[in-house]
Amino acid sequence: MVTLAEVARRAKVTAATVSNALHNPQKVKPATLERVMAAIRELGYRPNLTARALASGRTSTLALMLSNVTNPFYPEFVLAAEREARKRGYFLLVCNTDDDPATTRAYLEQIAGTLAAGVIVMNTDLGERELAQTARNGAAVVLCMWEHVRASRTLPCVTADFAAAGSLAAEHLSELGHRKFGALVGVGSGGPQSRRLGGFAQALAARGHPERALAVAESRDTIESGYETASALLRARPTLTSLFATNDLMAIGAMQAAADLGKRVPNDLSVVGLTDIHLAHQFRPALTTVRFPTQRIAAQTIALTLEMIEGGSAARSVYTVGEPELVVRESTGPAPVARRKSAT
Amino acid sequence: MVTLAEVARRAKVTAATVSNALHNPQKVKPATLERVMAAIRELGYRPNLTARALASGRTSTLALMLSNVTNPFYPEFVLAAEREARKRGYFLLVCNTDDDPATTRAYLEQIAGTLAAGVIVMNTDLGERELAQTARNGAAVVLCMWEHVRASRTLPCVTADFAAAGSLAAEHLSELGHRKFGALVGVGSGGPQSRRLGGFAQALAARGHPERALAVAESRDTIESGYETASALLRARPTLTSLFATNDLMAIGAMQAAADLGKRVPNDLSVVGLTDIHLAHQFRPALTTVRFPTQRIAAQTIALTLEMIEGGSAARSVYTVGEPELVVRESTGPAPVARRKSAT
Repeated sequence: MVTLAEVARRAKVTAATVSNALHNPQKVKPATLERVMAAIRELGYRPNLTARALASGRTSTLALMLSNVTNPFYPEFVLAAEREARKRGYFLLVCNTDDDPATTRAYLEQIAGTLAAGVIVMNTDLGERELAQTARNGAAVVLCMWEHVRASRTLPCVTADFAAAGSLAAEHLSELGHRKFGALVGVGSGGPQSRRLGGFAQALAARGHPERALAVAESRDTIESGYETASALLRARPTLTSLFATNDLMAIGAMQAAADLGKRVPNDLSVVGLTDIHLAHQFRPALTTVRFPTQRIAAQTIALTLEMIEGGSAARSVYTVGEPELVVRESTGPAPVARRKSAT
Repeated sequence: MVTLAEVARRAKVTAATVSNALHNPQKVKPATLERVMAAIRELGYRPNLTARALASGRTSTLALMLSNVTNPFYPEFVLAAEREARKRGYFLLVCNTDDDPATTRAYLEQIAGTLAAGVIVMNTDLGERELAQTARNGAAVVLCMWEHVRASRTLPCVTADFAAAGSLAAEHLSELGHRKFGALVGVGSGGPQSRRLGGFAQALAARGHPERALAVAESRDTIESGYETASALLRARPTLTSLFATNDLMAIGAMQAAADLGKRVPNDLSVVGLTDIHLAHQFRPALTTVRFPTQRIAAQTIALTLEMIEGGSAARSVYTVGEPELVVRESTGPAPVARRKSAT
């Protein structure tokens, strides 16, 4: 591999001049600049970008840390964030931390402020205090889609209105005439999805449903766990006519559990999810769900990270992007009349 | 941010000694080493890993380039590769190139040999010649899961036996008594999946099926495109009793197309996929498919990349890992007797 020193020798200049030619060409005399560029071409020298990053004090790379790349929400978010970063001249490197705090810590050590000028943290393996330490080491750190953020926190967070999303699901089911509600609450990689449940429960109460009308069960954020949890819940509560899952994967598992118990969706049981991953419309029956504005959240996250890299500090600590939106498909319908009578 | 120079001043040694203390401690007298380490602790110095990478001439980071992170095969592969890399002390950064050659080129420029010591290339946006150029710039470049590789090529490739996988699907359908076969061939991000089709067609011929028994249609590697293509094929060839798709996403789309055309899977139509992504067992009916040994391919890819980084050259140019394996689930069954009679 050709080195900068070899280029300097060939061009009969110092290494500092080669570096200036690459990074601050205005400081180099035109004739010298031309000689250096000729040497670079002749030798096939490829500027060492790590060195360039060191010299300029910044890199053009962002890192996105997530806990579980096989949960389809994350790849969909990655795609949106990557396109947005690229539009603005940055690269996005993805780090899958595999739900392991030690790995998260090691990635941060390895990349924050050195390989990557900015780090977007979607997983919650580390506490905010530890992440703030990383930020003090020179990297722009932005939290993204953290469900439990407070305005008093030290790191900025771009997030969605989780409670409003839960409310929309509750209002939809209530309007369809349902009176018995089940809820599967995710407790997976992104932390407990309790704000979504909170919004759901609050909207039910606001519409006059008694507390006992809602049966809650916790589940991991996977199709398999949604299946198991919904099976148990539907067996324990055979009069349920509706199920809300705090993410789409669990909702899909719940639809399969219903099918295996001989319940037709939506005739016997309405199911509503949350997020609107691609699978929501790809599955049969297609899933009614509450859509997060993934593209806009990704764009806002990239924009904020770049602002911070470029020297600004975040104006606010919590940026709540857009309005969640109900997307009605095939998995919800009017409450079954007979069952509704026997249950009330 | 504390610098190495500050550590040197505090410890009353040269910067080179601090560097040795970090990277070649055996070269430093124990008393000096202790003084340097104390200074590092007291100042909260965090070694600049980019500088360390520069100093040692290598980094401990690998990059994996893929074309489409939302195709679930890739996240599943990423997870396996990331775990394997981590076990061996390396980090894996994922670059989604979004099916764009210019992005692929830009990522390579940015990372190969500088941010990442080794690059695993799963997408086929760039030709091998251009990738080989990258390798000449000092990075270890390994192709992975390329379907069309020749032993004469310059870059090593870790891949699967695509033709054998196609054969297994054909043998399974033939043994179930099918005589009319449809095939959906992927032409997506990873390049044309024609080896899989070749193996399928060859195995049919070997079992005495005439060429006209096989109807082929091309499709993108998505559920949606599989749905559209299968709908058209099943309408054009209503006597088909079996469908092979060269990947699972298209097979899932095909099952949905069958359902919408009033064909029961597997009673009226058997469907077999290829890869065994998680969705294959998560969908209903669960998909019969031919499994690639994803974990072993990932492990072999990481191992080969590290060998090359650590100075070895690849012993062979094509590493074909493991045997594909038929996984029979709910989407295949005996050919329907009535239709079989009318079709022969």
